[in-house]
Amino acid sequence: MDAIEAILKRRSIRRYQPRDVEDEKIDTLIDCARRAPSAGNRQPWRFIVVRNAEVRRELAHAAFDQNFVAEAPVVIVVCCDPEVSAARYEDRGRSLYVFQDTAAACENILVAACALGLGACWVGAFRESEVRKILNLPPNLRPVAMTPVGYPAEEREPRNLRPLEEVLTRV
Amino acid sequence: MDAIEAILKRRSIRRYQPRDVEDEKIDTLIDCARRAPSAGNRQPWRFIVVRNAEVRRELAHAAFDQNFVAEAPVVIVVCCDPEVSAARYEDRGRSLYVFQDTAAACENILVAACALGLGACWVGAFRESEVRKILNLPPNLRPVAMTPVGYPAEEREPRNLRPLEEVLTRV
Repeated sequence: MDAIEAILKRRSIRRYQPRDVEDEKIDTLIDCARRAPSAGNRQPWRFIVVRNAEVRRELAHAAFDQNFVAEAPVVIVVCCDPEVSAARYEDRGRSLYVFQDTAAACENILVAACALGLGACWVGAFRESEVRKILNLPPNLRPVAMTPVGYPAEEREPRNLRPLEEVLTRV
Repeated sequence: MDAIEAILKRRSIRRYQPRDVEDEKIDTLIDCARRAPSAGNRQPWRFIVVRNAEVRRELAHAAFDQNFVAEAPVVIVVCCDPEVSAARYEDRGRSLYVFQDTAAACENILVAACALGLGACWVGAFRESEVRKILNLPPNLRPVAMTPVGYPAEEREPRNLRPLEEVLTRV
């Protein structure tokens, strides 16, 4: 799919077909994630690809019972390592760049999923301490987003956007 | 250009041809930026498209004299509005979602630029107070990234990536 089309067409998909997603497609999503830019090329991230159904249910529970998270055959949890950024950029790395770098990676996953005919949805609301425990994350990693990935079972119209004049200034 | 190809091929481009970039292409970049997902669809962002040469020079100076910023015919400054996110999500909105949302928008700009045959580069290191002053930003807006955009005058090899086993876990 054309890049501009994929970026413009991408929507949050929360309903999935029961069929599985091929390993090769998941590998492509991860490859897209790790090609995101990062400050100083620090790559302060780790991606957890969850196929285990029980773990997916626990993640959905940690995400305030957003059950659609468990209904996708795969959930990708995006984690950041703030000290990897801070080692070079101190507080600006720890409190800004590390979130930007991992968010760019997550957006690449979502756009690539759309391009591959998959549906995904950025989930940011979850109890981090619970996710850490479920995934046995080492203390340096902080989970900052998760996205279920599956073949979509819904089509969605473009979402409402703020008027262009509210979000664009020309100088 | 194919979406996966654009995501994988995108590199930070810091050398630009002197030729201008068409308004239609810049409009497409902004359209891609504002189609990024945002927590609760808050769209806590503003994009400043700078063509004015003097302003570009001032921005390059505020970015610790990274002069390539001024050498592109267009600079897009990405700003966030933390209180728009905080109004719904309190501290998690103010300290996490607002940076993620604007970073997703910025990554869309970079990938779309690559797909349109343009070159861009995420610049995160700059004196924010100086950028605010140069652009007369209202106090609610915080500049979080800027990217010069032009026709590339360099080709770059894929960059070094951390080994896959360091960044990927399967569960």
